[in-house]
Amino acid sequence: MPRKPTIRQTETVARSRLFRIEALELEFTNGTVTHYERLAGSGRGAVLIVPVTEAGEVLLVREYAAGVHRYELGLPKGRIEGEEPLLEAANREIMEEVGFAANRLEELTSLTLAPGYLGHTTHVVIARDLYPRREPGDEPEELEVVPWPLADIGELAARPDVTEARTIAALYLTRDRLATEEG
Amino acid sequence: MPRKPTIRQTETVARSRLFRIEALELEFTNGTVTHYERLAGSGRGAVLIVPVTEAGEVLLVREYAAGVHRYELGLPKGRIEGEEPLLEAANREIMEEVGFAANRLEELTSLTLAPGYLGHTTHVVIARDLYPRREPGDEPEELEVVPWPLADIGELAARPDVTEARTIAALYLTRDRLATEEG
Repeated sequence: MPRKPTIRQTETVARSRLFRIEALELEFTNGTVTHYERLAGSGRGAVLIVPVTEAGEVLLVREYAAGVHRYELGLPKGRIEGEEPLLEAANREIMEEVGFAANRLEELTSLTLAPGYLGHTTHVVIARDLYPRREPGDEPEELEVVPWPLADIGELAARPDVTEARTIAALYLTRDRLATEEG
Repeated sequence: MPRKPTIRQTETVARSRLFRIEALELEFTNGTVTHYERLAGSGRGAVLIVPVTEAGEVLLVREYAAGVHRYELGLPKGRIEGEEPLLEAANREIMEEVGFAANRLEELTSLTLAPGYLGHTTHVVIARDLYPRREPGDEPEELEVVPWPLADIGELAARPDVTEARTIAALYLTRDRLATEEG
């Protein structure tokens, strides 16, 4: 593993209500000095939940995505708030977005989005042993819930409204994990 | 498919050399009015390449990732420049980062990162029929190339330096595509 470059200087160059952009001056071990920009991660990161039913389906939500101005079908997700434990955040999000809670929650892995310029981390949580329970969330409209067989990820990923790399990666990783448990 | 909310107003609220942050005022079809922020996508987006060898290995690169300040092992990638055709951009990036060019390039799919607040699109290109060819790039140091069997994605994704959702999603989707071709 190469030795990391030294961060010689950091400066916040732009800031908005949600985002903070940092400029970095870096010196690599070969002596090269470069300037990068990155978006700082927000707080404790996000949680992405894979709710799996007894029938082997995952519960997806259809949600408006402002970044691309269209509806996207994907896994429920949200920010971890304050001191909230990770698995509680996951359970809260599925109660708000999907209308279910889980008796069994486990962290599968952590994902980054574009680690070259984003500091964001997303924790992937598998939720099982589900039961109906809805809590009010901060969504501007109710989300449509779409069950999808975990066995058919390829067909799902081919849809034009299923594009989010986190959702696709989390579904494949969950399928592998469940296959290992059954094996 | 629900009808999209109406964008009533957009405003650039922060800007840096690389990033531009927009504030949106949206009216959903149920009458709810909300305010969002999003990071505008840059130009024509990025390309992520899956270089597959005759032996069924993919060629990964170990690259410093400023967003998380550590080295990350993942697929080669980069921005599409100006009017450059997509597949030419893919071939340029692997010549610069991996030291190979491809006789056979095809777009597999497009991925988003976090469509709720990022406008970025990444085009995934499978590169085959590889031959050695290096071109100078703009990397601050030479990247280490790591071949990895496409059959062992689960083991790869379990490594602490392999976290990028785009890389993991692209590898699974490529494995599925190649299995279909062979089937």
